[in-house]
Amino acid sequence: MNRGLLLVISGPSGAGKGTVCDAYKNKCGQRVWNSVSMTTRAPREGEVNGKDYYFVSREEFEQRIQDNKFLEYAEFVGHYYGTPLDKVEEQLAFGNEVVLEIEVQGALQVREKMSQAIFVFIAPPSMEALYERLLSRGTESKELILERLEKAKREIKLAYMYDYIVVNDEVHNAADKIMAIVRAEHAKTERAIFGYNKLMEVE
Amino acid sequence: MNRGLLLVISGPSGAGKGTVCDAYKNKCGQRVWNSVSMTTRAPREGEVNGKDYYFVSREEFEQRIQDNKFLEYAEFVGHYYGTPLDKVEEQLAFGNEVVLEIEVQGALQVREKMSQAIFVFIAPPSMEALYERLLSRGTESKELILERLEKAKREIKLAYMYDYIVVNDEVHNAADKIMAIVRAEHAKTERAIFGYNKLMEVE
Repeated sequence: MNRGLLLVISGPSGAGKGTVCDAYKNKCGQRVWNSVSMTTRAPREGEVNGKDYYFVSREEFEQRIQDNKFLEYAEFVGHYYGTPLDKVEEQLAFGNEVVLEIEVQGALQVREKMSQAIFVFIAPPSMEALYERLLSRGTESKELILERLEKAKREIKLAYMYDYIVVNDEVHNAADKIMAIVRAEHAKTERAIFGYNKLMEVE
Repeated sequence: MNRGLLLVISGPSGAGKGTVCDAYKNKCGQRVWNSVSMTTRAPREGEVNGKDYYFVSREEFEQRIQDNKFLEYAEFVGHYYGTPLDKVEEQLAFGNEVVLEIEVQGALQVREKMSQAIFVFIAPPSMEALYERLLSRGTESKELILERLEKAKREIKLAYMYDYIVVNDEVHNAADKIMAIVRAEHAKTERAIFGYNKLMEVE
């Protein structure tokens, strides 16, 4: 069986990568496997272990870091968040498509560990749109908003490190583009040649 | 303006590349520019110079070969056929997508001259299907059919030299795959980064 495809959907805060990723997964249905993150923060009301997150202790998380068991991880305001490597590997070995929606820094860590993954950068349609989206999150302090803005500005300059750039002008359009990218990637000769040679009885 | 994209659709005789290419162009409409070949054979009833072919003399064709004015050319049963380089270059410079439907040998010549073109190999769904298609061309002699079969067998082994392999299981499906490939190619970072940097005001 062919190894599955790892799709990394990433981009700056405010580009709408979460919405685009959800729209993409909705279009694909059961065909894609959604990676569940591991975290050291406490579960919130209604969150289910193994579905929303894997909730573990700080000690366990740090042990897993030492054992190289994360595809990527980061610390945000005192809590660890990471993508367990074994679960992703398992799904890829089954031939399933795995979608990771992660921050830019995390994506660059994945690039180092799994260079054969496909890296899609979700870009906002303009700087104005990005500002608007970041500023409209009304519940946050001005300080936090400014911090996010600075982070987004840094992240925007890293698009060149990705395989594809998808501008999120409209969510369904961006999701369609990702579908086209995945379809094209499956047709790439390096992936399609084995099945083709078998089909055509080429030695 | 961005330079246009050169799409080379090729594959063995009997794979149905002509049908797939027509279906693809129908789906795209006016967006793609169809390359017109040059030939030394005489025009047939109803064929229009500059539309079906550019009809030229053997002397003119050979002069153009010497002047390196073909993207690719070949000789079949005493007549030359080739793709004029200047017309293709002109359309690419306008930012248009150019589609070339050509034989495998021609495609490999294009690869040498324009490595940035996108090479799609149209494969038959099986060897049986290929045999059937080649044998069902009832108007041809047994000798000619066997010759085509041998040619197809040689060409089938060259799929690995292409960027993408598209199996022609159903024509509309194969044409959709080519659309996905072109869409993905436009989103590739190496092509999308210039527009993106402008959009995001990245220096």
